[in-house]
Amino acid sequence: MKVYLDNAATTPLDERVLEAMLPYMRNHFGNPSSVHSHGREVRTAIEKSRKKIAHLLNASPGEIFFTSGGTEADNTALLCAIESYGIKHAITSPIEHHAVLHTLEACEKKGLIQLSYVHLDKKGELNLEHLKELLEKNPSSLVSLMHANNEIGNLSDLHAIGKLCQEFGAFFHSDTVQTMGHYSLDLQNLPVDAVAAGGHKFHGPKGSGILYVNKNKKIHPLILGGSQERSMRGGTENVYGIVGIAKAFELAQEEMESRRSHIKMLKKRFIELVTAAIPGVQFNGYSGDMDQSLYTILNVSLPPSEENEGMLLFNLDLNGISVSGGSACSSGALVGSHVLRALEADPKRDAVRFSFSHFNTIEEIDYTVAKLKELYGIVA
Amino acid sequence: MKVYLDNAATTPLDERVLEAMLPYMRNHFGNPSSVHSHGREVRTAIEKSRKKIAHLLNASPGEIFFTSGGTEADNTALLCAIESYGIKHAITSPIEHHAVLHTLEACEKKGLIQLSYVHLDKKGELNLEHLKELLEKNPSSLVSLMHANNEIGNLSDLHAIGKLCQEFGAFFHSDTVQTMGHYSLDLQNLPVDAVAAGGHKFHGPKGSGILYVNKNKKIHPLILGGSQERSMRGGTENVYGIVGIAKAFELAQEEMESRRSHIKMLKKRFIELVTAAIPGVQFNGYSGDMDQSLYTILNVSLPPSEENEGMLLFNLDLNGISVSGGSACSSGALVGSHVLRALEADPKRDAVRFSFSHFNTIEEIDYTVAKLKELYGIVA
Repeated sequence: MKVYLDNAATTPLDERVLEAMLPYMRNHFGNPSSVHSHGREVRTAIEKSRKKIAHLLNASPGEIFFTSGGTEADNTALLCAIESYGIKHAITSPIEHHAVLHTLEACEKKGLIQLSYVHLDKKGELNLEHLKELLEKNPSSLVSLMHANNEIGNLSDLHAIGKLCQEFGAFFHSDTVQTMGHYSLDLQNLPVDAVAAGGHKFHGPKGSGILYVNKNKKIHPLILGGSQERSMRGGTENVYGIVGIAKAFELAQEEMESRRSHIKMLKKRFIELVTAAIPGVQFNGYSGDMDQSLYTILNVSLPPSEENEGMLLFNLDLNGISVSGGSACSSGALVGSHVLRALEADPKRDAVRFSFSHFNTIEEIDYTVAKLKELYGIVA
Repeated sequence: MKVYLDNAATTPLDERVLEAMLPYMRNHFGNPSSVHSHGREVRTAIEKSRKKIAHLLNASPGEIFFTSGGTEADNTALLCAIESYGIKHAITSPIEHHAVLHTLEACEKKGLIQLSYVHLDKKGELNLEHLKELLEKNPSSLVSLMHANNEIGNLSDLHAIGKLCQEFGAFFHSDTVQTMGHYSLDLQNLPVDAVAAGGHKFHGPKGSGILYVNKNKKIHPLILGGSQERSMRGGTENVYGIVGIAKAFELAQEEMESRRSHIKMLKKRFIELVTAAIPGVQFNGYSGDMDQSLYTILNVSLPPSEENEGMLLFNLDLNGISVSGGSACSSGALVGSHVLRALEADPKRDAVRFSFSHFNTIEEIDYTVAKLKELYGIVA
C-alpha cells in the first residue's frame, strides 16, 4: 500500500485542474503581451483567472499578482515593502517558513533592517502582548506572521495581529501558503497588506503562486523586465500555471466544506487511533487540538525508541508511507526543524508531520497507525 | 488562414515536450525536497534534467540552475552579481531586452552602480573598441550584452566580448534567451560567467528558465527560502517545467540542423518575396543579412503608407497573421521600440518583426507576403 500523508509539502494536481490547463499547453500558446489574436486569447485567460481569484478572496483584481510560487510571493512582499517604504525594522517569529525567515535574516545581515522576534509559548502560540510592545517601540515596522504554521499547524489570529499593525502603522504581511484554499479569506475585511499562496498546496500546479497586495499599498516589483502584471513582475506569464491555480482555487472554495469535514474526520481518527496505539504519544504545537489548529496537519511526537532513532521516516517510507519530519519545503529536511527547536521540543522524541488531503482514505489512516504501532514493537 | 510568425515572442509547446511533462502532472507529484519515495522520484527527474542540459551546453550540472523563466534568470545574474561582488559599474547596450535594461537602470537609480552604454552603429552593431575603452576606465565592471537581439536579430561575438571581459576582470553576463536552443553553445569554451534562457522560446513550457553560472563565480540567490537548487533559489521546484525545458532543449539540439535549414529557407524566401513585392522595403539591423543575423528573425522596415499608418499590425491580425512590432515581451508593444529608437530608425516607416519556427510553412510565408502586398495597395 502506498500512502501519501505529506500534503503540506505538496498535493497531487487535481485532474480537473490539469484539464483546464491543457488547452493552454496544446492550442492557445500565444504570448499574453502580444496584441494579436494569439496573444489576446491567452491574455483573456489570465485576466479571467485573476478576476476569479479576486472574487473568491473578496479582493479586487488589481490587488492580485501572479508569481512563480509562494516563496517568490513572500520574497516580493517582504523585500519590496522594505524597499518601497524605507522600512528599518521588521517583526516576525522564530517559527515562520524559511521563505520569510531567511529573507528577513538576509535583510538584517545587509544592514537594511533590525529584526525582532515575537515571543512564543511552548506550544508555539504568539504572545500578542509582546508583539504590541515591539510595535510600541518600533512603529511603522514590517510585520510578517504566518496564518498557519506548516509544521505544527498552529493558527494565528490575523484579525488581532492586523488590528495591532494598523494601530502602529505597520505593514502586515502574512504567509498564508498553508491556509489559502483550505480556509476562506475575506481580504476586504481582513486588516492585512499582503498575503502569499502557492498553487501546489491546494491541488494546483507547481510553479504558480499568488501575491495579494492591498490597493492602498504600493510596492516595487522584485523581478524587472517587461510590464507584465501591471509592471509588478517582468517575464512572460506562466499561462498554464495561472489558469491552473485559478481553477484549483475555485475548486478548493467550492468544495471546501466537504473536503474539510472529510479531512477533519481523518485527523480525528488518526489522533484517537495513535493515542490508543502508542503509549506516551504527544502532539507538537496545537496540532492535536481539533479546533485550534490547521485541520490538514498533525505533528506527532513519539516517545524515544531505540529501534527507530533517526530511522523513523525511513522505516515508514519502507512501508510505503510518505510523511515528513519537519517541513519538506527544503532539501535536507533531516537536518532538524527550526520550528520544533523554537518550541523546545524534546530532541529525544521523534516528530512526524502527517498532513492530509481529501484524497486520503480511512484505510490509509488505519494502515499508517498500524504500521507505526508495529515499528514501535507494540503487538496488539 | 491563421499564420503565427511571432516565434521570438513565444513558441508553441512541442507535443513531445508535453508528453514528457504529463507523467509529472498526473502521477509523480511529490515535492522534490521530500526524502520519501514520492519526493525521490521527482528529485531524480530534476537532476536528470539538469544533467541533460549541462551535457548539451558542455557545462557541469553544478553550473545549471532552474528559474521561472529568462527574465528571472537575467535578474538573478545581474542583481546577485552586483551584490555578491560589490560591483559599482555596469556596461550594457541600449538595445538589450528590458529584463536586462530595466534591472540595471533600477540599480543605477538606487545608487548601487553607474551605468555605461556601449556605442552602436546604425545597424545596431556593438562598437567593441568603445567597450574596451569603457573597460579600461572601469575594470571589474559587470558587462551584460545579449547574444542575439530579440527585435532585429543582430548577433554579437560572445568570444570577443568575453575575452575583453576576462582581460579587465569584468563579470560577463549574456542574455541568450533568443539563441539557446537555436545555436549550440559550448560553455566550457566560451568566456562567459552567466547566461540565461527561457523554455518557451524553443518550444518548451512557459514558466521555465535556465540560469548558467560559471563554477568559478559564486553569486547569492535572488529568491530566498528553502535550500532548493543548492540554495540558489528557494521555492518548490516547478517539476513539470523543469522536465519540459530539458526535453525541449534536447529536441532543439537534436533537430537543430534540420530546423535551421528549414527556417533559413523560409527567411530567405520571405526576403526575396517581400523585396520583390514592396518597393522601398528595407530590413532593420542586420536581420536582412542571412549570415550576420539570427535565422529566426526578420525585421522589415516598410515604406511610409497612409492606409496602414499605426494600423499595420492590426490589419495583419485581421488577416489572421500574428506578428510583432518590436518586442512582444511586454504589454503595450505599440508604445514603440527602444531598439529601433536606438538605431535611429525612421519613425515614419512601419517596422514589423516576423519571427519563424520550424512549424511554419512555405504557404504561410507566401500568404503573408501576398497580404502585405495587398495592404500596401500593390496589385500584381
